[in-house]
Amino acid sequence: MRFWLGCRKCGKPTPFNIKSGSCPCGGTLQVEYDLELVKHTLIKENLRDRATSLWRYAELLPVQSKEHIVSMGEGFTPLISLTRAEQAFPLKRLWVKREEQNPTGSFKARGFSVALSIANEYGIRKVAVNSNGNAASALAAYAGYAGMEAYVFLPKDCPSLIIEECIHYGAHTCLIDGLIQDAGKLIREGEQEQNWYNVGTLKEPGRAEGKKTMGLEIAEQLHWKLPDVIIYPTGGGSGVIGVWKAFQELKQLGFIQGDLPRIVSIQETGCQPLVDALRNNDLFSPQSEEVSSSPTGMRVPQPPDGQLLVSIIRQSSGTALAVSQEEIRQAQLILGKQGISSSPEGAATWAGLIRLLDQGWISRQDEVVLFNTSHAMKYVHGSSQSKLPIVKSYQDWVTLKPS
Amino acid sequence: MRFWLGCRKCGKPTPFNIKSGSCPCGGTLQVEYDLELVKHTLIKENLRDRATSLWRYAELLPVQSKEHIVSMGEGFTPLISLTRAEQAFPLKRLWVKREEQNPTGSFKARGFSVALSIANEYGIRKVAVNSNGNAASALAAYAGYAGMEAYVFLPKDCPSLIIEECIHYGAHTCLIDGLIQDAGKLIREGEQEQNWYNVGTLKEPGRAEGKKTMGLEIAEQLHWKLPDVIIYPTGGGSGVIGVWKAFQELKQLGFIQGDLPRIVSIQETGCQPLVDALRNNDLFSPQSEEVSSSPTGMRVPQPPDGQLLVSIIRQSSGTALAVSQEEIRQAQLILGKQGISSSPEGAATWAGLIRLLDQGWISRQDEVVLFNTSHAMKYVHGSSQSKLPIVKSYQDWVTLKPS
Repeated sequence: MRFWLGCRKCGKPTPFNIKSGSCPCGGTLQVEYDLELVKHTLIKENLRDRATSLWRYAELLPVQSKEHIVSMGEGFTPLISLTRAEQAFPLKRLWVKREEQNPTGSFKARGFSVALSIANEYGIRKVAVNSNGNAASALAAYAGYAGMEAYVFLPKDCPSLIIEECIHYGAHTCLIDGLIQDAGKLIREGEQEQNWYNVGTLKEPGRAEGKKTMGLEIAEQLHWKLPDVIIYPTGGGSGVIGVWKAFQELKQLGFIQGDLPRIVSIQETGCQPLVDALRNNDLFSPQSEEVSSSPTGMRVPQPPDGQLLVSIIRQSSGTALAVSQEEIRQAQLILGKQGISSSPEGAATWAGLIRLLDQGWISRQDEVVLFNTSHAMKYVHGSSQSKLPIVKSYQDWVTLKPS
Repeated sequence: MRFWLGCRKCGKPTPFNIKSGSCPCGGTLQVEYDLELVKHTLIKENLRDRATSLWRYAELLPVQSKEHIVSMGEGFTPLISLTRAEQAFPLKRLWVKREEQNPTGSFKARGFSVALSIANEYGIRKVAVNSNGNAASALAAYAGYAGMEAYVFLPKDCPSLIIEECIHYGAHTCLIDGLIQDAGKLIREGEQEQNWYNVGTLKEPGRAEGKKTMGLEIAEQLHWKLPDVIIYPTGGGSGVIGVWKAFQELKQLGFIQGDLPRIVSIQETGCQPLVDALRNNDLFSPQSEEVSSSPTGMRVPQPPDGQLLVSIIRQSSGTALAVSQEEIRQAQLILGKQGISSSPEGAATWAGLIRLLDQGWISRQDEVVLFNTSHAMKYVHGSSQSKLPIVKSYQDWVTLKPS
């Protein structure tokens, strides 16, 4: 047996199950692998012959049969140097992991490629998710490709373009007068009656494993020498959980050595349960006060596994920061002028970087990776067209001297 | 000397020049390589160790020094099977080349990565382009990354999101009361005075070479066995010219053998100079009657090298088709339901496929590649949000039964 489920808290193993759920002890379950078995075929030198998608790491993904894989070209996204910023800032290296180049323009594609491959393996035809946006459109696309029916539930203030995407991919799309957890409650209430397979955050074992591949990739792309700092925008936190798990597995496989990167979780002021927990003796509790942050993927006041996130951040000697909407807006502009299209979440990592440089928390020796989780375009409202000059000739242009 | 310019018509060589322009005989110039020299280092078996971007084929790109390369993770985009369509249609294989996964969401990224690498090599700081949309935003991003100033000129009816992108990437953005050629005229009038490097279609040698890599990639991704048919949306036509050039070079390098694919150019009814030329004894002339097609990348009534396009299509035993706006709209919906986000241009290839299947022009033995040149999202206007039901609970949802 190559894989099974194990409790993140007590460690107890249990057979693989498509509804991962919780251990009797209360810990969440995660996929574990017989890494000694994996070692036989997953060999560094052989990776170069493999698909340039996340399925290059198939031994570390919980799908039995190749023919069930639902893949549309997700993963193995570029990791590019921000060379101009590297020169300007007191740090050693600065990379951006361009997750916006995934299908559907966000890192969420990874999770659903794996989750729906598992679903496919078990003959599931109806899938449902609650989401702040990108997870919904990614599920919609992958379900469309796999010929499954998708039901997506989004807060009513989610970006309009993402709603268009869900509809475009043929998903049953419904808006919620509430937050992401209210949408989650709706799915839990209906899942039996409607025969929905709930692919919400940590409801099944595949999505976290799909996101794990981001960690595998940066290790491989940096030639198995990890960076010093990883800055990640954090809502539900399965990205952070996944990346951390990747590093553990790579260590056990002997692919990497030494210290792991310091993990920095970025949140937006007004929805910052992780930042609050680090200030509160590392005791995590869901945010009780009213949420006042903007409708992005970071707006998750009750992440399903908050305590685990706190412990990963601590174990890594990392930190968590809440940045303001205005800092995010500025960061989007600055990244844009460097040619990078960044979602508010991706831009938040830049805003965090600036703060950490100011504080001296990042130093001249540090190699840093920012995760740009999705594309700016999904969040843009086109209003510039009516404000730009319209010319007929070069002479017009010279006369008007538009900016 | 690894590369120089050669006339596409009379074959006369001339030293490499960043303003490729025309040969005295009237033919356009293209980059040519010493393929015997290239053979020494570009070896099939070594490709697996190379970057997963278009720069894996560096020997076939006209840049001297690695340090001048402007690369943001363009190229080596996924080629995925449309398995459900493969089963439904009388053809052997059907792939989509997902060009929307490039930086800036379109294939145009390729051309500007190469064009601006050359510009960088020659110390150029100001670049200008006329464009129907995606070329402008791609130039804007690459100029931003390279620290150059970009001037982009677009028809005033171009999609609003693309205008936002250009501004986001910091380009000087100007709208034209006219078509793409009117914007080109403006640049030609101003280029000396403004010191603009004109990176319009076929004005310099880099963009066509960048697009060529699409052809190199599908050959490599299909293990050096080319498909029978390539369906490509055609405006200025540098994509088709590039892909065809790739196949010639691969043949000379001995990487591929046998017949080349039949090239199908898709245009939209109302702007179809290639379709008209094939009906008119293969004599190309720019479209003289009024253009009535929609504002997409295919709306180019005067492609700079129309006669070359006609000869490529003929030589390959290919064809050209004009599809209607309604066929394109339907195709976008159908591709969407298969999980593919397609621009009108990308969807036009699907519309063309359907017609060619109906005509029996594509048969059961044929392996077909569609090029999805960019992302649907750039063309969407979000209006669904206000029309969707908003629920508070599962009970609401059951009562409302939204679609």
